[in-house]
Order: sequence, then structure tokens, then C-alpha cells
Amino acid sequence: MRVIVDAFGGDNAPSEMVKGALSALLRDSELNVLFVGKEKETLDAIKEAVGDSEIKCIDGLVTFGGAKSAASGRMTVANADEVIGCDESPTQAVRTKKNSSIVVGLNMLKNDPENVAFVSAGSTGAILTGAYLIVKRIKGISRPAMAPLLPTLKGGQVILCDCGANADCKAEHLVHFAVMADKYMTVMNGIKNPRIGLLSNGSEEEKGNELTKEAHALLKNTEGINFVGNIEARDIISGDVDIVVCDGFSGNIALKASEGMANGIMKLLKDGIMNGGLKGKLGALFIKDVLRNIKHTMDYNENGGAMFIGVEKVVVKAHGSSKASAIANAVIQAKELAKKDVIGKIKESLGGVTFNEA
Amino acid sequence: MRVIVDAFGGDNAPSEMVKGALSALLRDSELNVLFVGKEKETLDAIKEAVGDSEIKCIDGLVTFGGAKSAASGRMTVANADEVIGCDESPTQAVRTKKNSSIVVGLNMLKNDPENVAFVSAGSTGAILTGAYLIVKRIKGISRPAMAPLLPTLKGGQVILCDCGANADCKAEHLVHFAVMADKYMTVMNGIKNPRIGLLSNGSEEEKGNELTKEAHALLKNTEGINFVGNIEARDIISGDVDIVVCDGFSGNIALKASEGMANGIMKLLKDGIMNGGLKGKLGALFIKDVLRNIKHTMDYNENGGAMFIGVEKVVVKAHGSSKASAIANAVIQAKELAKKDVIGKIKESLGGVTFNEA
Repeated sequence: MRVIVDAFGGDNAPSEMVKGALSALLRDSELNVLFVGKEKETLDAIKEAVGDSEIKCIDGLVTFGGAKSAASGRMTVANADEVIGCDESPTQAVRTKKNSSIVVGLNMLKNDPENVAFVSAGSTGAILTGAYLIVKRIKGISRPAMAPLLPTLKGGQVILCDCGANADCKAEHLVHFAVMADKYMTVMNGIKNPRIGLLSNGSEEEKGNELTKEAHALLKNTEGINFVGNIEARDIISGDVDIVVCDGFSGNIALKASEGMANGIMKLLKDGIMNGGLKGKLGALFIKDVLRNIKHTMDYNENGGAMFIGVEKVVVKAHGSSKASAIANAVIQAKELAKKDVIGKIKESLGGVTFNEA
Repeated sequence: MRVIVDAFGGDNAPSEMVKGALSALLRDSELNVLFVGKEKETLDAIKEAVGDSEIKCIDGLVTFGGAKSAASGRMTVANADEVIGCDESPTQAVRTKKNSSIVVGLNMLKNDPENVAFVSAGSTGAILTGAYLIVKRIKGISRPAMAPLLPTLKGGQVILCDCGANADCKAEHLVHFAVMADKYMTVMNGIKNPRIGLLSNGSEEEKGNELTKEAHALLKNTEGINFVGNIEARDIISGDVDIVVCDGFSGNIALKASEGMANGIMKLLKDGIMNGGLKGKLGALFIKDVLRNIKHTMDYNENGGAMFIGVEKVVVKAHGSSKASAIANAVIQAKELAKKDVIGKIKESLGGVTFNEA
């Protein structure tokens, strides 16, 4: 199964993208990877990653020997000369930069059934706009959503949907998000009747703003999902729910506030240890494993990318600052999403539900 | 200056409320405290806190000897038989429980110029509703807001306004919040031209939802404030801004998501240390001070309470789980807010600004 990887998206492109994809290939024998990006730089990065100076590229197909030769013949490169920056207007960039890695990659995803998924750590706006315009949304879903997985304190995962694709939502959009996320967690995480919480400013039913009050009433009356009511932002990572539904603005606030606090505490811990003299450093040495585990547990980058859920094929956005390990996870996740046919399952479930295309 | 303290609000009432107020009295010689709550229980709690069995209460005035006698004659008790629970409908509770500590306290605040402020750790909804209905809003401010102070990573403070009083806002309300918070930080924290950020889903000007885009345009054109643009939730505690303006729903999400993550990391750290055997415990011993400092730095309860800003007198809400030290900070903060006449300064500034009372 071939996954397209945007070699030129993200802060650490192309080297970490290539290293990550290579690592995914070595871990998962079902996988093939098609890189889109500046051909020469991408090949240089592959050469460095595989450590074989005899590497060959014929018609885009890359072969090599050496320790990582299990991935030989499973990578192809398609040239895309342009890069869309994170500071560009997404709509304009997607319309004008036809040779950008995002636009080329999404077109290849759309047009070739062999390509099952697209992974990028590039401009979120351009990926969303491009996927919306090129890959197109599933009939019946008016608003595709960005759905990252977060680690929970109980050791599982929770999916946050939407976390940024739709800054303004109507109540029925939140119902779409719930139905799509329900299929995601059922199919991908194997959870029966995933518990769905509606993000609000209080757990009581009457709490909320106009949007969530209306959404609450709709969700309560949506059959086939396990809606458990409102949840507060402090309980997103509690593990008490499997899915948190919200508008993209609130989801973005929740995600980034959590990230800011996690980074902040880790920084204070590091500073405190560095300034704590020998005693602090000895302490750090003793609890090194604890700290590493926490960083690993709470680092949502390690949980793979965020699926842009609601378009016709699998599109996964990895965090802009992703390193190779996060990219590897995102690539394998994207393949699994395609293999387990999450999108087909969403479409089936829509058969029984009537949506207003608002 | 007399501050009214709700002896029966919060999870740890009345004992921690009384202990906290006593500690404030011992720290601040300008302060007097008037407790509202069930008289007998409040007196018992005072007796325990001051540790003098010879304590006397005549016409509500409490006198005693012993180590804490510096506070003798500076506490009064007013009886209020009812308590409003956090699970009650705020509007109904305020309307029907005329003898509740919140309603009695707010009426005493409203009617007696000697009472300069009201502090409660009770039901947020009831305090807001009560303050709105009894103390009344400042003319020109249509929506009073809840404004807690958060610690920043640079060692300062940032005020978040609104963080829960108004779930649905119009753009002009966010301008009111900015103007009020500006006075707060100028007068209370001594910051010249405090930097005001608008909470959004991206720092670029064009990012946001309908509300924040409209508010952004208004804030840019509001004279006399230092609006620095949009900020993302991950930067709330960065120390790059002094004020974060947002609707109450988003503010609540940001605050509680941060709180959830901070508690989560601290729990993982504790669990990791407990399960890390001797090595983990030794490590914890060595970096005990570091951990205590972080907890102290990031614990927004220690930063005092949240002012309900925009009503005619000082009303401060302390966190429901506040212990004595947080209450002491909130009581002193409330007195300072009154002493420095933050409300008067807000009124003055409104003279030059035209608001739509939307």
C-alpha cells in the first residue's frame, strides 16, 4: 500500500521526513512510500538516511544496498519544485502553486487508486484547503475536520474533533464530527461504542454557549452513537471519554493551551534541575526514566498525525516540528487508516443518517 | 478597610476560609474582615484558628488573646443561615435563598460603604448572578467578566479576561474586557501600557473565528490601549503579553485545559516516582525543591482569586478548592483592588470611550 509523503513539509524537511518514512518502511512490510518534493534534495536526503553511496534512482524508483536494503525498491520520488510556506494564504497558495509538494501530492492521491494516503507536516491551512478542493469531501459531510489523537492519563487515547479546520461551526457540524470520530475510534482503536463528550464550559447539561447547547440537544437525539454529555477541558485527557467533539476554534484553544502548559512545566523542570546544582542534577539522574516516560506519554506528536477526516481519501497532518519518529508513526497510521477503510465505514454509517448540508 | 468573606463558600468551608482570612489579617494591618455564614460554625472555626478558648463575640465582633491577638477586634461575623450549592441553578438560588452567605454578603457590600470588597470560593454562577443583580454593573459596561491571574513562565502574571462569565460574546464586549483588564494591570501590577493579546487559533491577523476577526478590527482601532494582535493558546503563559482577551467560553477552555495538563503531568510524575522504587524516591528527594517550586509557580490558586470585573464594587472569586493560603492572597488582593480604586479608574477611562450597550 503506497503512502505519499510530502518531503518538503515541516520544520525539519526533507531529512526528518525521509528518515521517518524509511523507518516506517523497515517496520511495516506492507508499506511503500512515494515522496513528493524537490527531486535532488529528496534523493540526497534518502542517500544520507540509507547510508549507501551506491544508491540508484531509475524513473523515480530508488534502490540501494546496505543495512537498510529491506526498504530498497519501495520508495519512489516524484518531483515538485515549489514549497508552500506556513505564512502564505492557503487558498491563494493552493490555487497558484500548482507545482508545490502539497498540490502535486494531493493530485496524485486523488488520481491514482494505488496511492492510498497523503502525509504532510507542512502548512495546515494549505493541506486542509488542498484536500477540500482536490480530494473533495465525502457526500453528506459538509465540513471535514482535523482530528488529532491525544494520550490520556489512563494510558489510552482520545480523539479531538475538530481541532482547527472549522473556526465557525453550526450545531449539525458537531454531529458530523461525532459520527466520523466514532468510526475512527471503532475501526482504528477497536473501541466498542466509544464514549463521546461535548467540550463545554461545564459538565452540566445546561452549561455551554449557544452552539454547544444546540449541539447537545442534537447529539442526545442522534442514534447509533454513545453520547455521554458535556465535558470540561480539564477532563479531555482524563481518559473518561474516547472522543471530544467541539468547534475547530475551541479545539485549537484546548490543544494549544495543553501544549503550552506541558512545554512550560517541562521547561521549569529543566531550568530547576540545571540551577539546582549537584543536588538537582543527581535528582534528575535518578528520575531520568520517569521524566522520559512522561515526555513520551504526553507528547501528542508521538501519537501520530491528525487525520483530516471527511474527505474522500486519507489525509494526515503531522505536527510541523515532527522528528523522524513522529513521521514514521504518522505514515504507518495513514496506511492503517486506508487498510481498515475508515472512510468506507464513515460512508456506510451516513447511509442511515440524514444530514443537512448546511 | 473591611473585606466581606463568604465563610461558607468552597470545598473547604468554613475552616480554610477562616484560617485564610486570619492569616491575611496578620499579614496586613489595614485589613478588617466581616464573615458571612452560619454564625455558630463560623465562630467555632475562628476559635480553632486562633487557638484561644477564651474567645468572645459581642454583637458580632470577635475578640481574643494569645499568639494571634493582633487580629483580635478586627473580625466580625454576620449570620447567614443558607448555603448555595454549586449544583444549584444560580439565578433561582440567588432569587430564592435570601439568607444565603452569597446574597447576604453581596447586599452588605452594596449597602454599606465601609465594606469595600467581597470574597467567596462558592458557586461561580451564583456569585456572578448575585453581583450582577445586587451590586450592579458599571454604567457603560454591558458585560462584566471573570478575570483570573495566571503565572507566566517569565515569573510575572497574565490576566485572562473573560474566563467564564459570558459564554456568548459580541466583539464590542471583548473591547470592554480589554479596557477593564488594562486598568487592572496598570493599577494593580504597575505595568505601563500592558500588552493586550486576543486569543485566537493562530497569531496571524487573518486567523480567527467571526467573533475574533471582528474584535481584532475593533481592538486595533481602540485608542489608549496597547493591542499587540492575536495570540495562540500555547502562548498565554509565555509572558509575551500581560492581558489575554477572549469570550468566556474560550477562556474557560484555555484555563481548564491548562489546569488539566498541569495536574496530569504532576500526577504522572508522582506515580512514576512512587513506582520507580528506591531510585525514583531518591531522585524525588533530590529534586523536591524543584518540584515544589513548579507546583507553586504554576498553581494559579496561589495567584489569588479572579476579579469579577465590571460591577460597581470589588467582587473576587477564589477557586472552589482553595486552601487557607489561597484565601489569604485573595482577601489581600480584594483589599488592594479597593484601595487602589481599580473600579474608579475603569470608570474614568470609560469617559473617553463610547460603548454600545449591546
